[in-house]
Amino acid sequence: MRFSFRPVEGVFYELFTRAAFNLVRGTELLNELALPGVDVQSVSERLTEVEHDSDAITHDLYKKINSTFVTPFDREDIYSLGSQLDDVMDHLEAVGNLLYLYGLTQLPALPRELHELVNVLDQQAKLTADAMPRLREMKGLEEYWIECNRLENDGDRAYRMLLVRLFSGEYDALTVLKLKEVADELEAACDAFEHVANTVETIAVKES
Amino acid sequence: MRFSFRPVEGVFYELFTRAAFNLVRGTELLNELALPGVDVQSVSERLTEVEHDSDAITHDLYKKINSTFVTPFDREDIYSLGSQLDDVMDHLEAVGNLLYLYGLTQLPALPRELHELVNVLDQQAKLTADAMPRLREMKGLEEYWIECNRLENDGDRAYRMLLVRLFSGEYDALTVLKLKEVADELEAACDAFEHVANTVETIAVKES
Amino acid sequence: MRFSFRPVEGVFYELFTRAAFNLVRGTELLNELALPGVDVQSVSERLTEVEHDSDAITHDLYKKINSTFVTPFDREDIYSLGSQLDDVMDHLEAVGNLLYLYGLTQLPALPRELHELVNVLDQQAKLTADAMPRLREMKGLEEYWIECNRLENDGDRAYRMLLVRLFSGEYDALTVLKLKEVADELEAACDAFEHVANTVETIAVKES
Repeated sequence: MRFSFRPVEGVFYELFTRAAFNLVRGTELLNELALPGVDVQSVSERLTEVEHDSDAITHDLYKKINSTFVTPFDREDIYSLGSQLDDVMDHLEAVGNLLYLYGLTQLPALPRELHELVNVLDQQAKLTADAMPRLREMKGLEEYWIECNRLENDGDRAYRMLLVRLFSGEYDALTVLKLKEVADELEAACDAFEHVANTVETIAVKES
Repeated sequence: MRFSFRPVEGVFYELFTRAAFNLVRGTELLNELALPGVDVQSVSERLTEVEHDSDAITHDLYKKINSTFVTPFDREDIYSLGSQLDDVMDHLEAVGNLLYLYGLTQLPALPRELHELVNVLDQQAKLTADAMPRLREMKGLEEYWIECNRLENDGDRAYRMLLVRLFSGEYDALTVLKLKEVADELEAACDAFEHVANTVETIAVKES
Repeated sequence: MRFSFRPVEGVFYELFTRAAFNLVRGTELLNELALPGVDVQSVSERLTEVEHDSDAITHDLYKKINSTFVTPFDREDIYSLGSQLDDVMDHLEAVGNLLYLYGLTQLPALPRELHELVNVLDQQAKLTADAMPRLREMKGLEEYWIECNRLENDGDRAYRMLLVRLFSGEYDALTVLKLKEVADELEAACDAFEHVANTVETIAVKES
């Protein structure tokens, strides 16, 4: 049996949970891009705010690692998990930022396949936010990492279909290049969620 | 002197060897792309079959790691080697898949430089398949990893020449974009073979 | 207090310092690209010479790691630092090489944003060359890695602005593709400098 109710440990779980909830805020903002008449500049600015908040959480986490004598699991795993949650946010922010910077808002609509990829990210975010509080008890995590990896496969397929659409001849070459940068950030976010899941698996296997 | 004839160990060497032989099957299928009148859809489908077989091998390997008390070398090295062999296969499969998905089969011919890159991969695959059974005795591995790294340099050069060809003005921009995705997968496969060789080097250095 | 004046240790610091000074030679060569009437072929050839010299330094370092019984810090950290300094050089060389190979020398001028990114790299190189000799005393390194990471953020911004310029419609699609390959190498060099700084941080934290 596992007791881990020392207050200092609680801080780590709380920071992971807050970081993961920010990812849900991020993917929900990206979901707004599918709405007709969406204000992309506003989505981009709100993503930047969420990203700043995530940076602050990561910073707190690193300070906590350095100032805590006994950590709930290996210091380097805490560090990895924190920086990987932060990586996801960086990619989500880049999506909004690039859409705005490249003037892609002037397209009549973004490709449907792009929204499908966002949808996969949104499921990964919710799954991750749901799993983080369960790190404390190390319970029910296996289904999380299996499902997160499965979603990453869905994301790969959606990304490939998005490229097929971009290369279909429907868009001019410069627009293809811009949309491909956006697609690459979405795909990197999808991979980054998988890295988070792999780290959770590593931690759980060590603790079992 | 090194004794390692316990049956359970044999399973690991056998799985690595089978995974590496699948890579030879993969590069030989890619070699068919140079044949006149090749049926790309058929190549792509057969690559997918080989990839599924590799997935099954990787899955068996992971189960074996988790159910074996004494492994022939560090668990994490076995895990790395297995997943890196699997990565190579994923890139090989992607090549066939993208050629078919992007409709590149309608080109009169693929660029010669693409076949040269495939040829480097084929040499890497044969070298790797030849080295895997020698893990058991840890003999003659140094020449394998040195040669595999040398081939990776050849591959870099072939990739760069392929890009020069793609950017020569001979192809329209969309075709360049599609062929570049294919070229990137080939180059990633070449790198992935090098990662396998680096892991073998790590294992051999620890054991020596 | 820390004594580390055994001659054998000195060799490691000297090799790191020489590798870092080669990076300064590399970024200064890239700075020449901003000069009117620059001979890009000559810049590319001199970059290749510096790169060969860096390879020799890295090779010496690896030999030294293997032949030294007591190293000044963890063998794997020495190895990482050496290979990461080498990675930076590979990206710097690729920039000159690609500009020449793709015939980009026929453009009236390279985009201003490209020179801004080179300028960030030049600052990172000088900062790194300045920090390497201080590894011996482990003094004043924190300001180095903080500043190097800050410069990497500047580099990200410069890279993004370079892409906005490339996608502005000023260049034809093939030229955009070629310049983007060059931009990606510059950005990879900027990241590679950050990896060097992160490794120095890891070493310093362990030693403190």
